[in-house]
Amino acid sequence: MDPPVIGDAFGEMIRDAYAVRTGIGPRPLAGGRLPRPVIEVIERDDGLINGAPADHYLDEPDAWQPYDHRALRLCRGRVLDVGVGAGRSALELQRRGFAVTGLDTSLGAIEVARKRGLHDTVLNTVDEFSRASVRYDTFLLLGNNLGLLEGPERAPVFLAALARLASPGARIVAQGTDPYGTRDSLHVAYHRRNIERGRLGGQLRLRLRYRELATEWFDYLNCSATELEDLLVGTAWRLKSIDDRDRPYYLAVMELAG
Amino acid sequence: MDPPVIGDAFGEMIRDAYAVRTGIGPRPLAGGRLPRPVIEVIERDDGLINGAPADHYLDEPDAWQPYDHRALRLCRGRVLDVGVGAGRSALELQRRGFAVTGLDTSLGAIEVARKRGLHDTVLNTVDEFSRASVRYDTFLLLGNNLGLLEGPERAPVFLAALARLASPGARIVAQGTDPYGTRDSLHVAYHRRNIERGRLGGQLRLRLRYRELATEWFDYLNCSATELEDLLVGTAWRLKSIDDRDRPYYLAVMELAG
Repeated sequence: MDPPVIGDAFGEMIRDAYAVRTGIGPRPLAGGRLPRPVIEVIERDDGLINGAPADHYLDEPDAWQPYDHRALRLCRGRVLDVGVGAGRSALELQRRGFAVTGLDTSLGAIEVARKRGLHDTVLNTVDEFSRASVRYDTFLLLGNNLGLLEGPERAPVFLAALARLASPGARIVAQGTDPYGTRDSLHVAYHRRNIERGRLGGQLRLRLRYRELATEWFDYLNCSATELEDLLVGTAWRLKSIDDRDRPYYLAVMELAG
Repeated sequence: MDPPVIGDAFGEMIRDAYAVRTGIGPRPLAGGRLPRPVIEVIERDDGLINGAPADHYLDEPDAWQPYDHRALRLCRGRVLDVGVGAGRSALELQRRGFAVTGLDTSLGAIEVARKRGLHDTVLNTVDEFSRASVRYDTFLLLGNNLGLLEGPERAPVFLAALARLASPGARIVAQGTDPYGTRDSLHVAYHRRNIERGRLGGQLRLRLRYRELATEWFDYLNCSATELEDLLVGTAWRLKSIDDRDRPYYLAVMELAG
């Protein structure tokens, strides 16, 4: 059995989801005839696989979850949307008059965000981009992108990169998921195994697949608010507030210390 | 990375799709809270992966494709629904007063079909079941189940099993897909590679995955009507008609020869 090809699985998925929603560009076909809904497939390293419709990456504000609306009200000044994807949040901030930059490592995602009207985009990692001389007042990590902290090893490196890009008084507004509320035995066993290996319980090892493409395996972190506070120790950031009205999802606001 | 567990992936998927649609039984949750749509994930041996919503397995007749309606009008006498799944077609035949038996190798599928009201079910392969003394007038293979012919090696064995279960004058009503109309370069390359290996172009090698489960790899055949006629040579069956009004999908009717 051939392995998938390593490539921009996320970007190709976003391109297709955009084509299906708008009718612009070639659409994926079922049986050569019927447009099919675009599905995001995520594999976890314990053999778990999950599919979910990808269309939500393109949702207009009227279809958003309530915490996404509350997140945008926490933005101020110049905003860097980290992991901008198809531009869902950044486009709305732009409509509201914010100076917003969308950053992503996926070329396909950036191209779709630009087609949808996002003016200022960066195709890069935060690490590389943090050498730029530009500064931001808010770093926005929606769509569960608090997960980009990955785990105890990556988190301080990632947070230091954001600190280099930070204006005085800057904040991070991030949406995360507390993994420990589940009663799903597959997830409970996975958390336990992670802890036995010295990882955080919700330190997921994932890859995304779309058609013939896959990403490399990467860590993606679901952590509790307490674990987040621990990860901030020794960094330039401190936890200012947690809004967990939509548990297990939450919004964390972090501010530059001192 | 751990491989998935070999098991009744199809059945667990059908159970969950039934639970999501009806609210009966435990439903799969996203983040421990929101019910998520159940997605069927199919891997092909060239590394291709596809996800599609599984809910259609439970569709009532008003949501069917037109060829499914025409297929039911081709049934007569006692009907064996081969690969009955969640019982979509068999339940409608039963409502119309047909004597219909639903056969499947998936325990989960059979259990859902019974919960939905299907009276006569068999958990077995056609090969094993063909030792039974019961006889049928129609073998119904919908949901693309002409694919169960698998390829040139399996097709005569499968067709002989159906012949052993056949009353005089029996017919097979099967829905297939002609694979050769596609312009998708991934599929065109796959067909070419198959032919180079001495397989039929549309002889797909697949496995189904659902959560932690996977089926074994199996062959599933998309063939043209011409290829189907070739596969029938030397069997007890001959092609009576092809209805390809919904190309690339078609209905094939085969009858006992002589």
